[in-house]
Order: sequence, then C-alpha cells, then structure tokens
Amino acid sequence: MKLCIIGIGLLGGSFALGLKEILPDLTVVGVDNNPEHAQKAIELKIVEQILSMDIAVAESNLIVLATPVNAIISLLPRVLDLVSTSAVVIDLGSTKELICAAVQNHPKRNQFVAVHPIAGTEYSGPEAAFTTLLKEKTMIICEQEKSHPTAVTLIEDLCRKLEMRISYMDAASHDLHLAYVSHLSHISSFALGITVLEKEKNEQNIFDMAGSGFSSTVRLAKSSPDMWAPIFTQNGKNISEALSSYIEILKHFKNTIDNQDEKSSYALMQEANEIRRILQGIK
Amino acid sequence: MKLCIIGIGLLGGSFALGLKEILPDLTVVGVDNNPEHAQKAIELKIVEQILSMDIAVAESNLIVLATPVNAIISLLPRVLDLVSTSAVVIDLGSTKELICAAVQNHPKRNQFVAVHPIAGTEYSGPEAAFTTLLKEKTMIICEQEKSHPTAVTLIEDLCRKLEMRISYMDAASHDLHLAYVSHLSHISSFALGITVLEKEKNEQNIFDMAGSGFSSTVRLAKSSPDMWAPIFTQNGKNISEALSSYIEILKHFKNTIDNQDEKSSYALMQEANEIRRILQGIK
Repeated sequence: MKLCIIGIGLLGGSFALGLKEILPDLTVVGVDNNPEHAQKAIELKIVEQILSMDIAVAESNLIVLATPVNAIISLLPRVLDLVSTSAVVIDLGSTKELICAAVQNHPKRNQFVAVHPIAGTEYSGPEAAFTTLLKEKTMIICEQEKSHPTAVTLIEDLCRKLEMRISYMDAASHDLHLAYVSHLSHISSFALGITVLEKEKNEQNIFDMAGSGFSSTVRLAKSSPDMWAPIFTQNGKNISEALSSYIEILKHFKNTIDNQDEKSSYALMQEANEIRRILQGIK
Repeated sequence: MKLCIIGIGLLGGSFALGLKEILPDLTVVGVDNNPEHAQKAIELKIVEQILSMDIAVAESNLIVLATPVNAIISLLPRVLDLVSTSAVVIDLGSTKELICAAVQNHPKRNQFVAVHPIAGTEYSGPEAAFTTLLKEKTMIICEQEKSHPTAVTLIEDLCRKLEMRISYMDAASHDLHLAYVSHLSHISSFALGITVLEKEKNEQNIFDMAGSGFSSTVRLAKSSPDMWAPIFTQNGKNISEALSSYIEILKHFKNTIDNQDEKSSYALMQEANEIRRILQGIK
C-alpha cells in the first residue's frame, strides 16, 4: 500500500509512523509546503519521498490530510479530483462540519472518510511525531453513511490495528462536543498563560512560585497558533457558546469569593470533583 | 529531634516522610482530628504515635501545622502558647498574610517561621503523601525578619537537606503572586470541570472525546474543597483581581472568535506561547 501524508506534523507524522510499524510493506510519500518540515520528515524516516501534491495523490491508495483545518477545506476538493477511483481519502482535522460541507456534493464524496483522532500533545512539526501517539486513543468517524462501505472498512481496520477505539458521530455533534471537551480547554489555558504573563513581568517569580499545578493547567498554552486559529474560526459558534458558559461559571466563582461565601465555593468545588470518575479512564 | 505534624495529609505527611529519610534519629508524632487519617498515618509509618495536640506540641522540637489554612489561623496562637522555649513552629499553608497577622503580637512570634512549599498534587490525605514530594521544589519563607535567626537557620538547613530551593518574600507579595500562579489555576480548572459536566450529561461522551489535553487542564478540578475553600476566603481580594483579569482575557478571546478575527486570536496565542520559556524550568 502507498500512503500519502499531506502536512507532516505531529498527527500526520505519528499516523505514518504508527502504520509503518504494523504494515511492513507500506510506502509513505509526503507533501508539505514547509521545506524544513519536508526535509526533517525524510531525515526522521517518517516518509520515504517528498512529492508535489498532484503526483503524490494520484499514485497513492490512502491519502491523509493532516494540515491545519483551513488548508484541509481548501485542499480536500482538489485531492478528491485527483485521486484514483480505488483510493481512500481521510482528514485528521479537529473540526468536521465545514470540512464535510466542503465536499458534500463532490462526485467522489464516498471515497472520503471524515475522521478525527482524539490525540495530540502541545508540540507540533515532524519532530513532535511518535509511533504510539494514536495507540489506545479514540478515532471518531463522522458521516460514515456518506462514505463507501469499503472505504469505511479500510479505515476501521487500520484503526483497530493501531489499537484505537472507534466512535461514530454526525459532524455537527462532533463539533459541539469537541468545543467543550477540547477547544475550550485550549482557550482556558491560553488565557491563563496571558493573565499570568501580563501580571508577572518578572519571570523569575513565575519560575520560583509556580508548581506542577500551574504547569499542568497552562500546558496547552504552548500549542501552535497555526493549528488553532483556524479551528476557532471554523467552530466559532460552538466555542463561543462553551466560552459563555465557562465565563458565567467563573463569574459565579468570583461572586462567591467576593462575598466570602465559603459554603457556595465549597459546593462548586464538590460539583467539579465529579470529574474524578471520568478522568480515571482518560490517559 | 522530635517532630510533630498537625494535620497528616499530602503535605504534612510528605514533609514527615522526607525528613525521616534524611534524619534517621527523627521521632514523628501526629495530631489529626480525623480518626481514619490518624490510623492510616500510623499504618503507613508516617508517624510513630498519635497524641492530643497539647501533649504533642509541648514535647516536640519542631511543630508543623499542615491543616487547611482556616485551621492554621485558629490553631497557631494556641500552638505557640504551648511550645517549649527552644521549639520552632512552622505552617505549610498556601496563604501567608492572615496567618502571619494572627500571631504578629504573640510573645513567641519569633519561634514561628511562616513557610509555603510550592508542591502538591490533586490528591489529599495521608495515602497521598510520598517521600520525594518536596525534592527540588521551592520553599518560600515569609517575614523571616520576624523569626529568630536560629529558627530560620534550622528551617533553611532542613530545606537544603530535602534538596529544596529557598525563596524569601513578604507575606503580602506571597499572597498576590500565589493568587496568579496557583490559586487562579485551580479555579480555572474547577470551572472547566463544571462547564463540561453541566453540558455533557452523558459521561460516555466525555470519556470518548476528551484527550490528554482536557485531562491535563482539568486535573486540578479533583482537588479537595476542604483545603481550597478557606484559601479562597483568605486570599479573596487577590484571587478576585486575578479572576477579573482572566475573565477579561477570556472575553477578549470570545470577541475575536465571534468576529472571526483570526489575526487577533493568532496574536493572543502567540502571546500565550511565551509561557514555553518559563515552563521549561518547572517540574
């Protein structure tokens, strides 16, 4: 099988490395508009060859779009135009509704499977990729009824070989849920980083006084703006709703603190503690 | 040396375990108003004996107050009343201003050293304690000029033996900085937990769709309300200021998203990315 990765970063690179491990005969070609990333992907043996998109897509059996989500929307229709009739195309984007909408009337829509692996780190680029990133993570498949059953089966089969769980969802539900359980976390962390940096001009103070708690909460503030700015645009409505709820709860917290209402802040924390049960299952 | 730990939880227990490792002749007695914690602390060999506070304090050389901060304020004056003239008393509370104020005119004020180890996890109770919690962490000593130099030297010496860094600060600055680099993180995390739990009534959805990013950001939402409610009360003014800034930045983020102003959200994330440099040094 020949695999084509368009956008060889953390996710695309890890997907390629994971598949290489389980499919010894796999050939991987890469497409990347960043020459340094392309060079690095060769050096790290993530891909065997860098090709232009048109050639890479035309000669591959599985094409993976792993660029930021704005580029996925603009590239996906062209990739479908170019693919051979037996090839399958997937994207790994964190949004699904607008990406699916961009090809809903494409004559080769059924060769496309819209997926989203719930996996990542705060790092980006090919150096951040590693073989086991996807292992034991969830792959969400959206609108599988619009994809050819053979295409869906191929992807399900690869996911199982990568030891992933599979979950099915419509694109709108995906985007709404993700706004709460992923996109909001990133904004809460970016905003926390800014709040602390703006207050603590003397960075030594942060270094001396911040512990593992701050470090964990602000970790996602290191994430790539190139990846996240387009996600915030594409999933703006849902993220805005999630942010409104989050801000309301923070204001409620602030009121209980301003009023020295310890009983209410205690109750709020007890409610939040319920997250313990759920986190036990998440790595 | 005889050490007395009042409140044998994560911090008090870890402090005792760490000192046992470096001081083989140390005897540790414990005081805890929770009989289960007291029993557990004996079983886990954190303390050799559970005593009433009056007896434990009177016969110890070093007394450590490691209860929630409201109990520290009420216990500290009485502990100072009870200690022998050569004993040293410390507290490990996350707030310092009101605790220092509570004993500012106490005749034995100079036997007290106000400290705060920047260390912790989201777990609590004696089972959460471990020997190396304090290793390579920062110990902040507040108002050291109000403590007897011998008392300060004893604590500095123990901290160095525990391989801790030491930092000095007035109590008001401590509380202001901590509001930003620690207390705010906890509230952002508690509020994130509540926002997601209120939206996602079907917990399986969170389990399926949340990744390591959510897990990291919401980790502190598991923290103990018994410990945190009194901190929020005691450091209310500073936390309220930090929360106001945080909410303003979140609103700014929301505006850029509502306006599809990708350039501004990109710039906000770039600002937040500056935290990378600082996080490198924090474990």
